[in-house]
This record gives sequence, C-alpha cells and structure tokens, in this order.
Amino acid sequence: MKIDSVDFFYLSMPEVTTEADGSQDALLVRVAADGFVGYGECEAAPLPSIAAFVCPMSHGACQPVSASVLGRVLNGPQDIAAIAAAVAYNSMDVLQAAHTFSGIEMALWDILGKARGEPVWKLLGYQASHPKTPYASLLFGDDAQQTLSRARQAMHEGFKAVKFGWGPIGRGTAQQDAEHFFAAREAIGVDGILLVDVGQIFVDDLERAALRLDALQAARTVWLEEPFHADALESYGALAARCGSLKLAGGEGAHNSYMARHLIDYGKIGFVQIDCGRIGGIGPAKQVADYAVQRGVTYVNHTFTSHLALSASLQPFAGLAEHTICEYPASPKALAVEMTANHLARDADGLIRTPDAPGLGIEMNAQAVLRYQVEVEIRVGGKTNYLSPKFS
Amino acid sequence: MKIDSVDFFYLSMPEVTTEADGSQDALLVRVAADGFVGYGECEAAPLPSIAAFVCPMSHGACQPVSASVLGRVLNGPQDIAAIAAAVAYNSMDVLQAAHTFSGIEMALWDILGKARGEPVWKLLGYQASHPKTPYASLLFGDDAQQTLSRARQAMHEGFKAVKFGWGPIGRGTAQQDAEHFFAAREAIGVDGILLVDVGQIFVDDLERAALRLDALQAARTVWLEEPFHADALESYGALAARCGSLKLAGGEGAHNSYMARHLIDYGKIGFVQIDCGRIGGIGPAKQVADYAVQRGVTYVNHTFTSHLALSASLQPFAGLAEHTICEYPASPKALAVEMTANHLARDADGLIRTPDAPGLGIEMNAQAVLRYQVEVEIRVGGKTNYLSPKFS
Repeated sequence: MKIDSVDFFYLSMPEVTTEADGSQDALLVRVAADGFVGYGECEAAPLPSIAAFVCPMSHGACQPVSASVLGRVLNGPQDIAAIAAAVAYNSMDVLQAAHTFSGIEMALWDILGKARGEPVWKLLGYQASHPKTPYASLLFGDDAQQTLSRARQAMHEGFKAVKFGWGPIGRGTAQQDAEHFFAAREAIGVDGILLVDVGQIFVDDLERAALRLDALQAARTVWLEEPFHADALESYGALAARCGSLKLAGGEGAHNSYMARHLIDYGKIGFVQIDCGRIGGIGPAKQVADYAVQRGVTYVNHTFTSHLALSASLQPFAGLAEHTICEYPASPKALAVEMTANHLARDADGLIRTPDAPGLGIEMNAQAVLRYQVEVEIRVGGKTNYLSPKFS
Repeated sequence: MKIDSVDFFYLSMPEVTTEADGSQDALLVRVAADGFVGYGECEAAPLPSIAAFVCPMSHGACQPVSASVLGRVLNGPQDIAAIAAAVAYNSMDVLQAAHTFSGIEMALWDILGKARGEPVWKLLGYQASHPKTPYASLLFGDDAQQTLSRARQAMHEGFKAVKFGWGPIGRGTAQQDAEHFFAAREAIGVDGILLVDVGQIFVDDLERAALRLDALQAARTVWLEEPFHADALESYGALAARCGSLKLAGGEGAHNSYMARHLIDYGKIGFVQIDCGRIGGIGPAKQVADYAVQRGVTYVNHTFTSHLALSASLQPFAGLAEHTICEYPASPKALAVEMTANHLARDADGLIRTPDAPGLGIEMNAQAVLRYQVEVEIRVGGKTNYLSPKFS
C-alpha cells in the first residue's frame, strides 16, 4: 500500500470553556491508502497541529510533517516505525510535530489492521486482549460536598473506580484539599478505587506537594497524578521517596517514549499514563508498555476525548492482564460521543474491552463530523495551504 | 507598563532548501508596551508558532499563548517570569507554545531594558559583559576535500574556532567520517579550536556513535555535538563515559530549562548549548547558565539565524568570563543579515561583545522586513485569526 492522502477535521463544541475538559474539541485524522481508510485523533490544539502538517519547510530538519508521510509505503508495522523515524528526524525542530503525527500514526495502524482483518493489538504482538476496569474521570467540585455528590453519581452509574482532578486542589490550604479527598473516599466506600490528579499545580515545588501526602494516604488514594510539570523529574523522584503506600502517576505530557521512560527511571512513578494522541501514536506507547512491564510499573491509558482515541489508547496494553485500570471519559461533551458511530460500552461487570475487530474497530459518524466541524483556511504567500476538507 | 500588542512577522528567502541552514526563514516578534517597542525571534517553524498564538482555546490547559500575554503587566523581571509561568500552565497541552513564547519573551526583556536604559545582561544581574570567541558554524563538505576548503576559508576570515556539522557524517563508514575530521584539523592548524556537530544522526544508537570516538579524539575535537535525539539521555550518558578527552555537547532542542538540566545531570554533557529562541527565551536560559556554573559545565549559545537572535542568546552568559566560546552564524542567508540594521561584528582580536546598549541593542531594518515578509492569513470559523501585519 501507499499513503495517498491525510485529511484533518477540526471539530468543536459551539462554546469552549476553561474547564479542564479535553472533549470540548477534537482533531480527527483520516488517512487513505490503496482504498483502505483509517482514522486517528490528535489530543492536541487543532490549529497548530494542522499548521505543523502544512507549513512551508524552514530547512532540512524543520520540514512539515506531510513531507515524511505522503506517498510513503505502508505494508507492515516496520513501515509505520520508519515513517515515525522520518518525522522525528525531518521535523526535529517543529515542536508540534509529535502531536500532529500521533493521530496520523493511529490511522496507519487502523489501515493496517483493516487490510489484514486483525485488531491492532494483534499486530502489536498480543495473543489476547484482557478486560479493563474503567475509572470515571471527574473534576473536583468547588467544595467538598460537590466532590462527594459527583463521586456518589459515578458509583450510582456502576463505576468501581473514580479519579478526581483539577478544580480547587493546590490553590487553597492542604486542609481544604484533605476535605475533598475524604469526601471522595466517603462516597465511594471502602472498596472503591480512588485516584487523584492535581494537573501540575505544584509546578516543581516539592514541599507544597508533600503537605498533601498524609491526607492522600489516609483517604487510601492509589495514585497522585501529575503533582509537577511533566519534565520536573527531580521533584517527582524526591516526592516518590516520601509517598509510602501512595504511588505517583504521570506521563500524559510525554511527546516521545524517552520522556515516559525518564519519568519511570528518574521520576520513580508507579503508574505511567500515556496518551497515544500525544506521544506519537500507538507504536511508541507500546514501547513504553514493554518498558513498564520490565520495570514493574503499571501502564495506564490517558484518554479524555472520543472512543476512537479510547480504542487507540487501549491497544498498547490490551494484552497486559495485570495492568487493569483504564481511564474512561465518564461525561464527555456531545461531540466526543457523537463523532463515533459505535462505543466501548461497559459490560455487566462494569468492564470494558478493546475491540476484537479489524484495525481500531471504531466507525465514524459522518453527520456528527459535519455538524461539529470548524471551517479553517490557511493561506501562505497567496496560496491555500489548508482548507477544511469535506467528510464523506 | 502593560503589554498592548504582539505581532509576528514571517520572513523567508524566496527559495528554501533541505540544507541544515536555519537562516532561510525567520519569525520576528514585535511587542509594544506603553510606547516602548521590543523585538525577539523564535527559532521555530513560523506557521505553527503563529498558530499557537492565535488558535482558539481547546480547554483550560490548552489555551493560545496570547491568552497569557496580552494585557499583562510588565514592570520588572519578575513580571516576565510570571507571564512565562502562566504560558507554561495555561498552554500546557499546546506543544508549540514554548517556541512561540521564546520570541515574545526576548522582546519583553528588550522593552524592559529600553525602559530602564540598561542592557539585558545587567537586568539579569551581571556587572560586566565579557568578550566571546566566536566559532564559525559550517556544514561538512560532500567530501573531505570540500570540508578542508571550507575550514581554510573560515581561517582566512579570521576565525580561531570552527564547528562542522551535518552533511555526510554518520551516513557512511566511520573511516569516511574520520577523513572529514582530519581534513578539518589539517586546515585549522594545531591551535585552531575544532568542534563537531552530527545533528542527532545516531538517534540513540550508542555503538554507531562510539565508532567515531577514536578519530574525533585523534583530531583533537573539543566537543561532539548532538550525537543523539535531544531526549536520549541514556545514550548521552553512556557515550560520555567512553569519551576520554572529548566532551559531549547538546541542549539546542531543550524547550524548557528542565530538559537542559537533565542533559547535564543524566546525559553528562560538558557543554550545554541553549537556543533562546526555543527554550522559552532569556529567563530560562539564564537559569541553565546558573546551573551550568554550579555543575562545572560550560554554557554556549545556539544561534543560526540573525544578530537579533545572537544578541538575545549572548545575554544569559554575557557575564561568565570563563565561558568563552560562542556560536556565530558565519554565512547566514541574506534575510538574516539584512533584517537587522546593526550587527555584532568581530573586533580586531576576532572577538565579539554583547551590546552595551539598552535592551538587546539591535535595531530592525524595516525595508528588509517588508522585502522578505511572507503573507499569511489564518481564518477559523469564518473569522480572521491572523493576517500578516505591516512593519513600520
């Protein structure tokens, strides 16, 4: 096969707010190769990601992503790795390139799976896929009572695990934060799995983060996610040494597999969370999963958007029976629900499964794509470099 | 002062080739605050960098760079740091943001220096600026004879140090590469300073890089630059342990100060090379310079574009008397020469000095900016988000 075309569809809710909800817009990628069509999704700012595909070349190591993708041969996983290496080298100085390529790379796996009639996880070398326990990703309430209500609602919806994130945590006192942690624990009961995400709020301030450790442990929190900037490895490592039974989680900011490995080796995290829509796609995510197994660290997906992104993010650890927790967008915005025709529903036991279908196993909903599409035109030097394509 | 406006000017040579010459285009940034005007330059792909400034918000941690810059107070260095922190947090998920902000940050220092009538290096806390020994940045020839000729030419032009980079190195045999190293040494004589840059050609392949070590040492090379991917810290560290008198250099790919510090701590580099047009500007570069001093590592600028970028890149280590080597674009393209009205010429001893003038001490050449400007228009949802501004 040969890569014939790559199209980007920028979807958005009519109104986008500052809440930490990544499902308010989406950058859908469609790739065509010899009659096969694959889909992927960049977990990224759509406009700069499109620009990194269509920009004029600045020099040999600052080429648009398109230069390393269009017209390339695609016959097996080794071709995807070769294209990824070409993008990394030729677009070395285009910082956004990793985010742009992530969605393309997923689509290449989708095409390969469809062409071979096999799910992507089989192409990755797994013999079987194992069910995962989804956690509901929720935002902390404005006060502890609201956090408690949201946790109760998630339990009511059948979740066995909840993750609370962002909101007021780290912005007030450690005592105020503790009230949220205990409220969440109260709502989910003794058997519920409690995860906490503080969205880099402490930047690299070890002591401010450490002030929260006692309450997090008392509330029997399984992991504390992203206390620091994605690259603040020293702060991660120093906090991990003081965490006791609590483990640190991080990795969603990794835009290559090296960064994720450094969080394991130097940051001493216990859970490595990979967003296939940022790290460069499914291939580098699988490398991280392999490394996590080797280092006794648990792999988890990071997904806050559509079920296309969810399927892609499950593939790299679908075959790891002991890595059971998975992020599951519990209340995504309408576009993230509607853009796919099928969904990864929870079964009677509350578990989800990576699709046992060719490729990523997700069909798109053309009407929803059309409904939410944002029209974009980029003109450079009197010539149109990008014009929103029509989905059909 | 208050930041009133930020304008981006995308300049380009009429023809851009795949050679590793970063001076073929430029992204000039102009910032205005209370009647003062400052300039900076992003060492970055112009189109995605502009897009990261004007893109619609995706969610609270994926906001355009503009959201954290326009209208902000600018009265001292602490305000620049606060704006940088706001960009890092609010644009956490916009990968390109660091490159976009780098040029803005330089312009903020330029404004502050002009308002106070002081050079930026004084605002950074240095009492004096020390002259630097510029090395001519050259590309390896297609064969060893061409490398020799280029080195002779640089000597003829009065350079005491040359750096050869890219070209055929790492693409053929180690023996072929050795011929280039020895040709360069032959041309520059026993006293010339020889530096070698291989532009990440070995990705993370330790053994392929190690095959070149004997010849590099025999040619008395001072540093081997970027043998690996900017994040391949383990490969850097392992190669450094086998380098003997040769030292490793790297850091131009760092888009925050953490990354540069990791190359020092884990990658064991001996020279840390910072591009102020990528790392987030002058502030984080100064942090790296301070850290380098503390760790016995030598700080060097990375500059392959205009003398505006050169002045900005010299400020963070202007006051470090013992960090004497500096990158100097020896044969930049016409736009990079013409876009500034003044230049940092070498003195009778072949040395260059950071301007002792308010701000960055560089004036722009309006006619050149107009001549090389590329017209860009970005429309989103029927509305113009960016239209090339007119320089005046």
